[in-house]
Amino acid sequence: MAEPATTPAATGDWAPKVFEEHGRELLASLRGHFEQVRDVPVARPYDPAELMSRLDTAVPQQADDFSRILADTWDKVVPDLVQWNHPAFHGYFSTCASFPGVLAETMTAALNVNAMLWKTSPSASALELVVLRWLADMAGYPADADAVLVGGASLATLYALGAARDAAYDHDVREEGLAGPGVPVPRIYTSDQAHSSVDKATITLGIGLRNVVRIPSDGDYRMRADLLEEAIAEDLAAGRRPVAVVATVGTTSVAAADPLGPISAICRRHDVWLHVDAAYGGLFALSDALRPALEDVSVGDSLVVNPQKTLFVPLDATSLHCRRRGALANTYRLVPEYLTSTHPGGTADFMDLSPQLGRGFRALKLWWVIRSFGLDGLRSRLDHAVDLANSLRALAAAHPDWDCPVPSDYPLVCLRYQPADGPRPDTPEGQAARDALNARIVEELNGAGEAFVSHSVIRDGYVIRVSLANIHTTSDDITRLWNALNRVAEKCR
Amino acid sequence: MAEPATTPAATGDWAPKVFEEHGRELLASLRGHFEQVRDVPVARPYDPAELMSRLDTAVPQQADDFSRILADTWDKVVPDLVQWNHPAFHGYFSTCASFPGVLAETMTAALNVNAMLWKTSPSASALELVVLRWLADMAGYPADADAVLVGGASLATLYALGAARDAAYDHDVREEGLAGPGVPVPRIYTSDQAHSSVDKATITLGIGLRNVVRIPSDGDYRMRADLLEEAIAEDLAAGRRPVAVVATVGTTSVAAADPLGPISAICRRHDVWLHVDAAYGGLFALSDALRPALEDVSVGDSLVVNPQKTLFVPLDATSLHCRRRGALANTYRLVPEYLTSTHPGGTADFMDLSPQLGRGFRALKLWWVIRSFGLDGLRSRLDHAVDLANSLRALAAAHPDWDCPVPSDYPLVCLRYQPADGPRPDTPEGQAARDALNARIVEELNGAGEAFVSHSVIRDGYVIRVSLANIHTTSDDITRLWNALNRVAEKCR
Repeated sequence: MAEPATTPAATGDWAPKVFEEHGRELLASLRGHFEQVRDVPVARPYDPAELMSRLDTAVPQQADDFSRILADTWDKVVPDLVQWNHPAFHGYFSTCASFPGVLAETMTAALNVNAMLWKTSPSASALELVVLRWLADMAGYPADADAVLVGGASLATLYALGAARDAAYDHDVREEGLAGPGVPVPRIYTSDQAHSSVDKATITLGIGLRNVVRIPSDGDYRMRADLLEEAIAEDLAAGRRPVAVVATVGTTSVAAADPLGPISAICRRHDVWLHVDAAYGGLFALSDALRPALEDVSVGDSLVVNPQKTLFVPLDATSLHCRRRGALANTYRLVPEYLTSTHPGGTADFMDLSPQLGRGFRALKLWWVIRSFGLDGLRSRLDHAVDLANSLRALAAAHPDWDCPVPSDYPLVCLRYQPADGPRPDTPEGQAARDALNARIVEELNGAGEAFVSHSVIRDGYVIRVSLANIHTTSDDITRLWNALNRVAEKCR
Repeated sequence: MAEPATTPAATGDWAPKVFEEHGRELLASLRGHFEQVRDVPVARPYDPAELMSRLDTAVPQQADDFSRILADTWDKVVPDLVQWNHPAFHGYFSTCASFPGVLAETMTAALNVNAMLWKTSPSASALELVVLRWLADMAGYPADADAVLVGGASLATLYALGAARDAAYDHDVREEGLAGPGVPVPRIYTSDQAHSSVDKATITLGIGLRNVVRIPSDGDYRMRADLLEEAIAEDLAAGRRPVAVVATVGTTSVAAADPLGPISAICRRHDVWLHVDAAYGGLFALSDALRPALEDVSVGDSLVVNPQKTLFVPLDATSLHCRRRGALANTYRLVPEYLTSTHPGGTADFMDLSPQLGRGFRALKLWWVIRSFGLDGLRSRLDHAVDLANSLRALAAAHPDWDCPVPSDYPLVCLRYQPADGPRPDTPEGQAARDALNARIVEELNGAGEAFVSHSVIRDGYVIRVSLANIHTTSDDITRLWNALNRVAEKCR
């Protein structure tokens, strides 16, 4: 069963020839998976205790054969993953990895370069500068801003707010910290729709959850700029220190976009840092349908966009941009001179722009994906996702039992099932019953394995939330999803 | 030139068949690279401006052919990487990616699972629990501690010190932050040899660089426990708040290990959190030669070990362990109930243990690498690295012109060239000349591309620092390195 070539020596790695053989075995199995992916349940019911007992073995003493490890992975692990890279996965923000990105990860891992300093990886750092400029261009942000690839949008927001915190005070926070007599209490402003990453960042930075001021949103789930200005004025009068406003472009719940123009004017008036969380929305600036709504992101002092969400790049790949040149380095760079983070000749030590030191060569997968599809190809794929979302909205709008309670231009569709003879939201009991009905539909649909969706709770209750951004999803998949929704809804009503 | 099959459609990904074909093309090129790797320069001289102009193109509008992208990568990018995954790379801590880990990254990217919540990825979360227990076992830390895979040791230390900060105060730091009247100034203690990650974490957490108390080390570069206790007592008398001690097992400069037993006794006496940074040293507990020195890591309230450094796993893969159950979740979990982070049935939502939300399926590569070599195979490979280091030390000790000024059991060798007729360190000028000579040797050696080493500055000056942990490195490579060092030294003297 085990080939002689794979018998492990006491030292050394597989021979390169064996690597190639095992790699071909893996590729063939992945090809088979993706060719049949519509027959694979997106998720399936499972027993957590059985799953743990299936996987929870003692540390293996002896080397095992790759074919057996691969078979175990397909047999014991993959079936109880949720299949995020499946054309019928519409949960959360439906991230997806395109094949060029998958192969780039192979190459990146094989070279295993650490892009912490320019001199530890000159061309990896150079390529990171290049793709960061490409991403800035795509998002409509200045390409000469400081920028860095990081491991997720929550970390990007953490790093940006750290720099904002240090820039907000007269004393040297980096050196002296926040504790001590007479330090004004820091305040962060964001809408009641903003992502949990703002809360997590505020905890980590020593600012404190109670100092996140949640500004109410308007009827379209956009931050109310008038209330923002009131909150800042009130804090200033009370001697508190406004540190940053976090505006969102593409909220988690319904993909709303805060009004960046008015918010930016308020920030400028009070000299407060504006961080734009465009993790979901930002790269839809490539799409003809959405570009007009995204022209304002350049007003942000910092910006996060997330190629791992919407650019078909595998986890993780997030970019943080900051037009306040030197601000990230002023916080995170350890060498004493407060110079710019860009060396003469345009080189950059990326370890200076975040709390991280060692960091992989994330630029390669961006380079491969962007080159493989081209800007035109990326645009047409994002437009296609928008088209699919619109077709689903049209199906719901044309059906007497369904509605789309939140209009949106993004490929994030909020649906609600409300049959004529079903519960009506006129009373609290009716509202609760309608919510429960829609929650049952989500549970049934996800349990059946044919599609996977999430939910949101908006002002008037529970909605079924369908994210469409997987490169493999076709209009046939939308038809299948629509049919499955109706079948399950009929069953649940 | 371009095959019809790769002509991009306006929507969708490559067909799975095309993915397999391109994957085979990539595998063949990687096989070729590794079969000839000793002919590839580890690094080569380059002109930063030429490198940037070579790579800095406008965003491509049109899709490109994979074969051309791959060729460009080999031709325009790879030659000016530093080849971290090369048998003659001995710089920094010489991380390395074994082939099973490389293939695991392909599979991980293809599935693209987000392991933020148990329910978003049941078997990915289950497998993460399993490999975290394996890693705890290997390091000699309690396997029932809370644990999480994170993206680097600097982040692990940041996350641990965040939890330590919040545990140190009487008031609710997570809720109220550090600013405000009467909050005692927080203090972090670490040795003068500790890693920059402690400083970066302290900046990020709002503690402030000046509140990192650098405890002097002894003649063996180990933290002086007596001076630690004095520093804590002094701070307590002055009303400051000791938050944590960071002890290092395997310092960056010379792989020294702080005395964990005495340090832990002091921490217990004053109720101060002990974080053990065993990023480099921790997993050498597998090695028979080093295990006895590592028996104490379980005294840490938290521990970081780094499979990406010493377990042949590609970047990034770091594990954070915390025996204060619930402490990480008490800081980073956003749901209001302060329950344990482990659900009934032993499941876990890993997003609760750090500031991150979205996170990839890092457990798979650990599972594949550990199973592919087995515990015995990992042990023999670490022992082999120790043997190679000892053989290099023996060569230097037997040569009249070389010495090894820092004894160490780890595969990190500090060498110094000091020919009988060369500069002597008896005077400041002689010391400076000896340092300059050794610095020239490093520069020449790295410039020649035959090997890549780093340097350290220890008490009596500059030393050449050789890290041996690449799975591909053989005793022949050590002979080549030794010959190259001598040839270059002769040239520089």
